[in-house]
Amino acid sequence: MHPAQTTIAAVRWRELGPTVELIDQRQLPGELVLLRCTEPAQVIDAIRTLAVRGAPAIGVAAAYGIALGLCATGDIDRHVDALCDDFAATRPTAVNLFWAVAQMRDSVAHSAGLPTAQRHRRIVAAAHAIAVDDASCCAAMGRHGAALLPDRGGILTHCNTGSLATAGIGTALGVIRTAIADGKQLHVWIDETRPLLQGARLTAWECAQDGIAATLICDNMAGHALKTGRIAAAIVGADRIAANGDSANKIGTYPLAVLCAHHGVPLYIAAPTSTIDLQCPHGDAIPIEERAAQEVTHPLGVRFAADGVGVFNPAFDVAPASLIAAIITEEGVARPPFAVDLQAMVDRARLRRSAATAGAQAPQL
Amino acid sequence: MHPAQTTIAAVRWRELGPTVELIDQRQLPGELVLLRCTEPAQVIDAIRTLAVRGAPAIGVAAAYGIALGLCATGDIDRHVDALCDDFAATRPTAVNLFWAVAQMRDSVAHSAGLPTAQRHRRIVAAAHAIAVDDASCCAAMGRHGAALLPDRGGILTHCNTGSLATAGIGTALGVIRTAIADGKQLHVWIDETRPLLQGARLTAWECAQDGIAATLICDNMAGHALKTGRIAAAIVGADRIAANGDSANKIGTYPLAVLCAHHGVPLYIAAPTSTIDLQCPHGDAIPIEERAAQEVTHPLGVRFAADGVGVFNPAFDVAPASLIAAIITEEGVARPPFAVDLQAMVDRARLRRSAATAGAQAPQL
Repeated sequence: MHPAQTTIAAVRWRELGPTVELIDQRQLPGELVLLRCTEPAQVIDAIRTLAVRGAPAIGVAAAYGIALGLCATGDIDRHVDALCDDFAATRPTAVNLFWAVAQMRDSVAHSAGLPTAQRHRRIVAAAHAIAVDDASCCAAMGRHGAALLPDRGGILTHCNTGSLATAGIGTALGVIRTAIADGKQLHVWIDETRPLLQGARLTAWECAQDGIAATLICDNMAGHALKTGRIAAAIVGADRIAANGDSANKIGTYPLAVLCAHHGVPLYIAAPTSTIDLQCPHGDAIPIEERAAQEVTHPLGVRFAADGVGVFNPAFDVAPASLIAAIITEEGVARPPFAVDLQAMVDRARLRRSAATAGAQAPQL
Repeated sequence: MHPAQTTIAAVRWRELGPTVELIDQRQLPGELVLLRCTEPAQVIDAIRTLAVRGAPAIGVAAAYGIALGLCATGDIDRHVDALCDDFAATRPTAVNLFWAVAQMRDSVAHSAGLPTAQRHRRIVAAAHAIAVDDASCCAAMGRHGAALLPDRGGILTHCNTGSLATAGIGTALGVIRTAIADGKQLHVWIDETRPLLQGARLTAWECAQDGIAATLICDNMAGHALKTGRIAAAIVGADRIAANGDSANKIGTYPLAVLCAHHGVPLYIAAPTSTIDLQCPHGDAIPIEERAAQEVTHPLGVRFAADGVGVFNPAFDVAPASLIAAIITEEGVARPPFAVDLQAMVDRARLRRSAATAGAQAPQL
């Protein structure tokens, strides 16, 4: 097995400055513009305005943004709370954001009493650790998931789950990348993913950048692609996975789940264990965010629709566990019924992270 | 039962001029612009460039365009063939176009020997007859179909099947209009219908014009709308119906059929008998037109997608007969298995039209 790679980094830390460098995803695919943030407020603005998006990538950007702010001050303890609160308030739903902010708070607390320059290095190291952890989760999902994909054929995906959404090769797209690096002859079918077009704008761009063979379709064409035998498997990410395996993901995932089941094509979910919400018993308990009508009626600012009718714009839907073939996390592959496997994976991930944190806090010899 | 009505006329004949007046559907929903065509070439251009679309509306526009050309000449017999050929060459797939052109040729042939002014009147009357026949087919579909819809609830539709696509109240949207005129409390759920957005641009506009309560969604949101109990029935048009009831319609219809079946929600097809192709045994024999990548990547001329990936753009898909609850034509309601009912309906429509033609050719007393 060859490690899958990508040429794309959604978020980078540059020591010079220091600077947090972000790909401005609002400009894609038109232009590859790098946002060079030298102040936390610029990173906050980038998260709020979706210049950087994708739950893991948001967490990494927030961690580096907090590091940026704390490295600019000698009075770390006076600034840390307000700075962390500001980052935690940027987006409401991404669990990874809150986790990353909490990690940064911990790292500040643990470095109390050390000389300022050493604290600065520890804080930057903590942000790096979050990025490295995410990248290694992606790599692990890739290894576990690639084995599930067929040796050849069309793989349908939805939304963007690649390097633009993570600090690594991606979740679902990372699995596809790994399978291709392993020598599988796969062709990616990309749903454009209305209303915000993460498939057409971002996943298509990633595939083109990395030379992955791909075909773009409108979301409503996936049924015909399945019916005409073009699709061997489907793989998507998730925004929240309930304890029973019901998986909330970008709107349009549920119809794919029904269509895949109708055609006997497996649907896989790839997401890190941080996406699993064991407090949430099943999909009906997952709140579905409804977003502005403008996203439907005026995509990219262009008028698509007549005035005078209502608009319904749910941002997510829920693929029921009964229609999911497997859930791939960094800890392995969960199979139906999912409850036992998911609980075990969350436990293993918690142990792994505690061990890593304990290691990081041990005196460096 | 109250007759359903509409304020919208996609195609009108004005004696003054004479003029063929068309709603320029390319400009909707931005502006309501009327194209006033005083020469056949302008009507041909309007059909070619989709200023007028929808199979029945195209047939009516062609009939009036031929009348326009022949009323401008004293030498009808010298011009008729080239003019009819030009109109028949405007669009490749719409069966109604060829039928309308043939009707106009017949009317010219039958008026041979009469004085020119009288022939002109007969030719215009033949074009009117085509429009009236289409409007009465719409009204009949409305009557037959309205009874199938529930007394209240959400009705999902796809593409544009209303007054902009016909010379009457429409096919599927005509059934909805009739049910509402009958007092049913219906709310229309409109799929935006990528790539060409006939739902967002045209159906939403028609609903707004006629005060029909409606909600616009992206195509990939219909699954969530069904899952959350918002949809009581779905009704769409058809571009070609095979002898066994398999129905080709705008891309995105097939996934709706699968989703409706999954949720136990009936899917109805509404289309005139001229859409039934008894020579075509089943859906696999229906050719699926693939259209330009640009429609997917640059809707309304705006860049949606990254370069460097392929594009698949099938314009239609096929809802299998097994997933269709009923097919509504002007002759009544066909039920599964459809073969016998569809054959009988085509026979009845043929008899009705022959009787009407015989009546029109009888000397007027």
